[in-house]
Amino acid sequence: MSAPEAESELEREVEGLARRAREASREVARLGSRAKNAWLLRAAERLEESRSRILEANQRDLEAARAKGLAAPMVKRLDLGGERWTDMLAGLRQVASLEDPVGEISRMTVRPNGLRVGRMRIPLGVIGIIYESRPNVTVDAAALCVKAGNAVVLRGGSEAIHSNRALVEALRTAARDTDLPEDAVGIVPHIDRAAIDALLRQDRFVDLIIPRGGPALIQKVTRESRIPVIKHDAGVCHVFLDESAEPEMATAIALDSKIRQMAVCNGLETLLVHRGAARSVLPGVLKALHEEGVEIRGCPETCAVFAEAVPAAEADWSAEYLDLILAVRVVDDLDAAVAHIQRYGSDHTEVIVTRDYESAQRFLRTVDSAVVGVNCSTAFSDGYRLGLGAEIGISTSRLHAYGPMGLESLTTQKFVLYGEGQLRE
Amino acid sequence: MSAPEAESELEREVEGLARRAREASREVARLGSRAKNAWLLRAAERLEESRSRILEANQRDLEAARAKGLAAPMVKRLDLGGERWTDMLAGLRQVASLEDPVGEISRMTVRPNGLRVGRMRIPLGVIGIIYESRPNVTVDAAALCVKAGNAVVLRGGSEAIHSNRALVEALRTAARDTDLPEDAVGIVPHIDRAAIDALLRQDRFVDLIIPRGGPALIQKVTRESRIPVIKHDAGVCHVFLDESAEPEMATAIALDSKIRQMAVCNGLETLLVHRGAARSVLPGVLKALHEEGVEIRGCPETCAVFAEAVPAAEADWSAEYLDLILAVRVVDDLDAAVAHIQRYGSDHTEVIVTRDYESAQRFLRTVDSAVVGVNCSTAFSDGYRLGLGAEIGISTSRLHAYGPMGLESLTTQKFVLYGEGQLRE
Repeated sequence: MSAPEAESELEREVEGLARRAREASREVARLGSRAKNAWLLRAAERLEESRSRILEANQRDLEAARAKGLAAPMVKRLDLGGERWTDMLAGLRQVASLEDPVGEISRMTVRPNGLRVGRMRIPLGVIGIIYESRPNVTVDAAALCVKAGNAVVLRGGSEAIHSNRALVEALRTAARDTDLPEDAVGIVPHIDRAAIDALLRQDRFVDLIIPRGGPALIQKVTRESRIPVIKHDAGVCHVFLDESAEPEMATAIALDSKIRQMAVCNGLETLLVHRGAARSVLPGVLKALHEEGVEIRGCPETCAVFAEAVPAAEADWSAEYLDLILAVRVVDDLDAAVAHIQRYGSDHTEVIVTRDYESAQRFLRTVDSAVVGVNCSTAFSDGYRLGLGAEIGISTSRLHAYGPMGLESLTTQKFVLYGEGQLRE
Repeated sequence: MSAPEAESELEREVEGLARRAREASREVARLGSRAKNAWLLRAAERLEESRSRILEANQRDLEAARAKGLAAPMVKRLDLGGERWTDMLAGLRQVASLEDPVGEISRMTVRPNGLRVGRMRIPLGVIGIIYESRPNVTVDAAALCVKAGNAVVLRGGSEAIHSNRALVEALRTAARDTDLPEDAVGIVPHIDRAAIDALLRQDRFVDLIIPRGGPALIQKVTRESRIPVIKHDAGVCHVFLDESAEPEMATAIALDSKIRQMAVCNGLETLLVHRGAARSVLPGVLKALHEEGVEIRGCPETCAVFAEAVPAAEADWSAEYLDLILAVRVVDDLDAAVAHIQRYGSDHTEVIVTRDYESAQRFLRTVDSAVVGVNCSTAFSDGYRLGLGAEIGISTSRLHAYGPMGLESLTTQKFVLYGEGQLRE
């Protein structure tokens, strides 16, 4: 086959996949919770039954990754064994236990002419998920999308292709066992990057694209998609220690936000400190962090109060380290902190530590990131921890969903009108 | 200037406009309702004061349109005089009277660890509106965007450029008179189509693009925008007369949906009829429509029961006539009606006329258009009529907003966390 022929063959294949997903989505939308839950529970069983086959496929990916010389943390993210396997299956059962958002009618009002107007929650339709490495996302994402009444088209990383295929095979077998249409869960079968481009052109059949991965992927998808995109972008998260911050709480929150889990998007990357707390509160906080092995990159005033700090460069203020490094800056006041966050932040998660009522309120009101907190760890910026039950990611786009996205974010609302012959005339 | 130079000059200019809007948007987001309302009321005054200047500019557009040989309805849509002028000013005052959605905190819950989690409604940021002809959209859209705490970048049709500039001038003068930053309302100063492309590339500064216009514009914007787009697409709206439809109500609803106002997107375009009502209900309904001058294009069964009908072609089922023409089709049952709507409809507005409880419920559940009604006119698919206070358009995209969009659709929600030192650990 010539290159253009192969390309149009690929295009046709991806279009067929998207079209079948659209058809399946109409059936999924009408399924009751019981049928969707039956599939989720059956999928857990099918995965368990196919465990050895799936882990064999996973081994092929792991070996290929090692042979390619991928860094150890990257290889580890590919691994489906051990706790990740157990968590993945538990995840399916947990999603089955979540309340089904579809069909809920809310905000019912009666118009002056007697017409009753409400909003009914309905699935989005077809959701495309484009993700890198972690193959467990295949199962997590499919579970959430289907529970919310959607069909899903998955496009995982090429380095996890064998694992992803084996997982989707089990999910589709479970569909055949139950009332879910098999095409409710589809996978782009090509590792060719052109397959992503082809998927991004399926705006007739796909309603939403969620890219999860590095900045290069996010940018590519945003630039090329004809389908609406919800970004899951970097997390350059801030904690601001206000003048009145309680020193012990400041230390505990900074530690928990930075250390608890490093390589996640809700981790602390820049600590901002009110000038009035630079001498009283900051040194103790930095000492505790430094003892945990955190490298401190500070502004001149930070370096002046904490000898172990190294000078920060301009690039540090917008760095997402995902590592034992912290940027620290002393600012004039709360407004300067907010201005810094606006300039360098990524609209993800910001926290103020304060004892002052007015500062707390002002920070909550004026910082326009997806998650804004007072006196708590940035680590709460997570769907489970915020009570959403589960999470498909954390949106840093403002449209449709902002912040951690649960089941409800995978639905929309239509207007429902109950009349008795009302005319507009 | 060479062509590439002119282009990069244009790009810089549009980027500057978008950047200033982004900066202004931060200020607008913090303004209280009183300041925003003061601007709205002052804008009405400033427009009134500049009336003769604006109508002069409007005359230039009208004359140019006539000289270019634009069709009379198109020329009429450009006209700012008479009732349209009064409505435009009344619109500003009405938006001032609407409740401000910004700052509302809802869905507050307490997590097991005592952390309080809620959602605070916040502006989207910067909204780009790309529209054709009607210059009154300039004022309506700016009013709604700003009331919801956003900055707006407007790009009206080239044929209304003088009117739009004069209107924006008055809106910005009113901003200088009050606390609104002037750059909260910006207009792309070029009629060059390349200016649209440049605007669609400003994803760093613009959060949402709303295109309002014909299919060519919508498609272009969807294809090229790097910014999320909410489409306001065609309305191929359906009324389905169920077997049990009450004949008088069926006639009244069909007439009101078709005749009341023809050239609007919520008008009836295809009437579907249950086979069981084809002989009993349909002839009377069609007679009434025909007497009002509506041309009936029917399926063979329609032509069999109504002699004045002409045979419909395949293209009629997806036509948005916006005219005194109606496509009519007899279908086997409710499921066949739903299948027809899914295949040919545009996800806008569909209504069932029925006396049967189960049919009503099933239609409401299974039709996945933005507005689905029972026993009422399609003409209620309108922000004012549904109680939203005002409307910036009717979305046929499912993401973020589906159906008539009011003030709330121009906002988003962030998570707010009230802690007392909670850690995740």
